[in-house]
Amino acid sequence: MSDTPTTVTQLLSDIRDVGRDSQRGGYSRFAYATAELELREWFVAEATRRSMDVETDRNGAIWAWRPGPGGSLDQAVVTGSHLDSVPGGGEFDGPLGVASALAAVDLLDARGVVVDRPLALVAFPEEEGGRFGLACLGSQLMTGAVHPDRALGLRDAEGISLAEALTRAGLDPTRIGRDNEAVGRIGSFVELHVEQGRGLIDLGHPVAIGSSILGHGRWRLTVTGEGNHAGATLMADRRDPMVAAAMIVVAVRDSARVTKDARATVGRIQPVPGGTNVIASRVEIWLDVRHPDDSVTAGLVSTILERAQVAAAAEGCEVTLVEESYSGSVSFDGTLRDRLATVLPEAPILDTGAGHDAGVLAEVVPTAMLFTRNPTGVSHSPYEQIDDADAESGAKALADVLQDLLSTADDQVG
Amino acid sequence: MSDTPTTVTQLLSDIRDVGRDSQRGGYSRFAYATAELELREWFVAEATRRSMDVETDRNGAIWAWRPGPGGSLDQAVVTGSHLDSVPGGGEFDGPLGVASALAAVDLLDARGVVVDRPLALVAFPEEEGGRFGLACLGSQLMTGAVHPDRALGLRDAEGISLAEALTRAGLDPTRIGRDNEAVGRIGSFVELHVEQGRGLIDLGHPVAIGSSILGHGRWRLTVTGEGNHAGATLMADRRDPMVAAAMIVVAVRDSARVTKDARATVGRIQPVPGGTNVIASRVEIWLDVRHPDDSVTAGLVSTILERAQVAAAAEGCEVTLVEESYSGSVSFDGTLRDRLATVLPEAPILDTGAGHDAGVLAEVVPTAMLFTRNPTGVSHSPYEQIDDADAESGAKALADVLQDLLSTADDQVG
Repeated sequence: MSDTPTTVTQLLSDIRDVGRDSQRGGYSRFAYATAELELREWFVAEATRRSMDVETDRNGAIWAWRPGPGGSLDQAVVTGSHLDSVPGGGEFDGPLGVASALAAVDLLDARGVVVDRPLALVAFPEEEGGRFGLACLGSQLMTGAVHPDRALGLRDAEGISLAEALTRAGLDPTRIGRDNEAVGRIGSFVELHVEQGRGLIDLGHPVAIGSSILGHGRWRLTVTGEGNHAGATLMADRRDPMVAAAMIVVAVRDSARVTKDARATVGRIQPVPGGTNVIASRVEIWLDVRHPDDSVTAGLVSTILERAQVAAAAEGCEVTLVEESYSGSVSFDGTLRDRLATVLPEAPILDTGAGHDAGVLAEVVPTAMLFTRNPTGVSHSPYEQIDDADAESGAKALADVLQDLLSTADDQVG
Repeated sequence: MSDTPTTVTQLLSDIRDVGRDSQRGGYSRFAYATAELELREWFVAEATRRSMDVETDRNGAIWAWRPGPGGSLDQAVVTGSHLDSVPGGGEFDGPLGVASALAAVDLLDARGVVVDRPLALVAFPEEEGGRFGLACLGSQLMTGAVHPDRALGLRDAEGISLAEALTRAGLDPTRIGRDNEAVGRIGSFVELHVEQGRGLIDLGHPVAIGSSILGHGRWRLTVTGEGNHAGATLMADRRDPMVAAAMIVVAVRDSARVTKDARATVGRIQPVPGGTNVIASRVEIWLDVRHPDDSVTAGLVSTILERAQVAAAAEGCEVTLVEESYSGSVSFDGTLRDRLATVLPEAPILDTGAGHDAGVLAEVVPTAMLFTRNPTGVSHSPYEQIDDADAESGAKALADVLQDLLSTADDQVG
C-alpha cells in the first residue's frame, strides 16, 4: 500500500505501441479486436497488481473491485472509461480515463486512505461505435437503453456479427442485455476523459468538471438526380446530385455557424454508383448535429432541410432526410457536480459536445465527469495530445474526488 | 445465305437477362466475370451460326471471320464493339454494336453481296474499365498503347489481378501485349454504338456518323485540413476539408458551364477517415474533364485548380492536383468519314464525349463510328434506351457501309 504511485505517463507508455494504425496514422483499437483485447489484458494485469478483484460482466465491461467494509459491493464509487478508439484515433481518448483511475488507486493507497465504501474501476466496450457503429454499446446494453436484439443484429465492416465477436472473445452473446445487478451496485460514477475541444486551453486550467453533454443526433440526407455519362452529357442537360450535395454540405456549415453553440458536420458522403466517369444518380450525406438545447437542434435540422430542398431543386434533384439516431442533451447530477466543485474549487465547469458512457449512466445513477486538458484541442485524430504534467494533475484530481466520495458515510449522493 | 435476317431486337432479347444488377439497377457485366463470359459465349455461338471462323486473340478480343477471296484475311473490313458494362449500366452500351454487326451480316447475306475483301466482327474486353479501372484495356493492349506490365499490375475491387482473371478465363497472361498481326489485318474499322447524349434527339435522326472523340482526362484533387471531433470542435475552430471540397465540386461545375463544349464532373469523392462523427482530415476528389480542344481542357483544369486553391485557403486547408490519365482528342479518318457520308447522305455528323475502342484504333488504322439514337439521352445508367425501329435503322446503315467498304477494290481507304 505504500509503494511509490505509478504515474499516468508510465502506465500509458506501456501501451503506446498497441493498435497503431500505419495506414490512417494514430491508433485503431476496435472493440474485441486484437489491440483492444491486448489493452483489456493490460487493464486486468494492472488491476490485479493492485489487489483488485477482476470480473467481466455479461455485456463485456471489465470491473476491478476493492470491496467496502465487510466485503460489500453496494453503493460503490465507480470510475473508469473505455479502451477502444475510432479508426485512426488518438492515444488518450478512453485509455487516459482508465490509466488515471489506476494511478488514482495508487495515490489513495499512498495516502493510506481508509474507505467506507467499495471502489470499482471499469472499462466499457465499444464506446466509440468504431467497430459495430453504435456508440456506448456496452453501457447502453447494461442500462437497457439498447435492446440485445438490436445489438446482435450489428455487423462490423468485414461482416462479422457482434455475436461472433463476443463468442470469439469468450463471452456468451445470449446473456447480453440489461444488467440490474451491475447497475444496482453503482453509488456514483465519475469518468475522467481527455478534453475533446479547446475549453481548458482557453481557460488556462489543466482539469475541468463536466456540466453536461450536448444533445446529439445523426441524420441521413439522400439527394436523387439523374445518373448519366460524364463525357457525353452536356452541362446544361444535367441533374447532378453531387453538385446539389456539395451545396448542402456548405449550407450545413453556414447554418451551424450562425446558430450559437451549435456544431454540424458532414464527415461521410457517398455518391452512387461512385464512378469517376459517371454522373451520380444519388448521393448519401450523413449529418451530425449537436447543441445543448434539443429544440435548437431540431430547428437547425429543419433549417438545413429547407436549404437542402432549395439546393436540390436548383439542380433538378430531390432530397429526403431521415433521422438515424438522437440522444437528448444530458445534464450531470447537480449534487454530485457541486461536491466535485467543493473538492476541486479551481476547476472550471465545462460542457462537452462528445458522447460518453457517462452520459448513458447519468440516466440511471448520479454521474460526473472530469476533463484533462488537451493542448492541441484536436480529438478523434492522431494529433490528440496530453502533457505529462496535466495527466498527473488529472489523476490527482480524480484521487481527491474518489477520496471524498469513498470516505464520507453521510453524504447525499448515491 | 437467304434466311430471313435476324433483327437487332431479336438478338438483344436473347441476352436481356444476362448480368442484371438487382442492387444498382441496370446491368453489371464486368470483363471476364460470369455475365460477360456468358455474352462472349453468345457472340461465339451467333457468329458460328453465320458460318464465321471464331478466334480469341492474345489480348482477349474475340474475332469472327469471313475470309476474303482466296481465304485472305488482309485489308479486312472490321466492325464490332464491346460486351462489358459500367457498374449498374444500361443494356445497349457495347452489345448494341455487336448485335448490329451480327444483324448487318444477315442483311449482307440476304442481299447476296459478293465481297472483294475479308470481313471480321470483333468484341473487345474491358472497354469500360469497370473491373480493372483502365478503359479500352483490350484495344490498348493490342495497339501497344498500354504496356503489359502496367496491365498485369491492375486488380479489381476484390483484389483479383488481371493475370488471375485471364488465367481463369483460359487465357495466357504472359502473352498479352502489342499484336502487330491482329492490327495489321485491319483495313478499316467501323464501330456502331448507342449515342450517349442528346444529339440525335435534337436533330431528329436515327443514325449519325462520328467525327471525333473529345479529349478526356482524369485528375485527383486532394484537400487536406484538420481531422477533429464532430461534437467537441467549435465551428470557428475548424479547418474542415469537406467544406472546401464541397466548394470545389461547385466550382468544377461552374467553371465547365462557362466553357463552351466542356464537360467536367465529380462522380467520386472520399473523405478520410469517413466517420459520421469525425471532421475529415482529408478529402479525395476525382475529376473528369473533356473538351474537343486539348488546350481548352488544360486551361479549364488550371482554372479549376485556381478556384480550388481559393476555396481551400478560405477554410484553412490545402489542395493538390495530380493528373491520373489523359487522352487527347481523336479525329476520325476524314477520307473514311466522307465515304460513310456518301453512303448515308442524311446522317448528321456528331462528335462524342465518350471514349471508345474506335478512338484507340483511330491512332493506327482508318476508323469510323456510327451512333444510334438513344431516346432518353441517358448513358452509363439503367435509363439508357433504344427504340426497336432505330436499332434496325442502325443495323441497315452499318450494312450499307460494310457493303460499300467490302465491295470496292479500288478505294483509297485501308
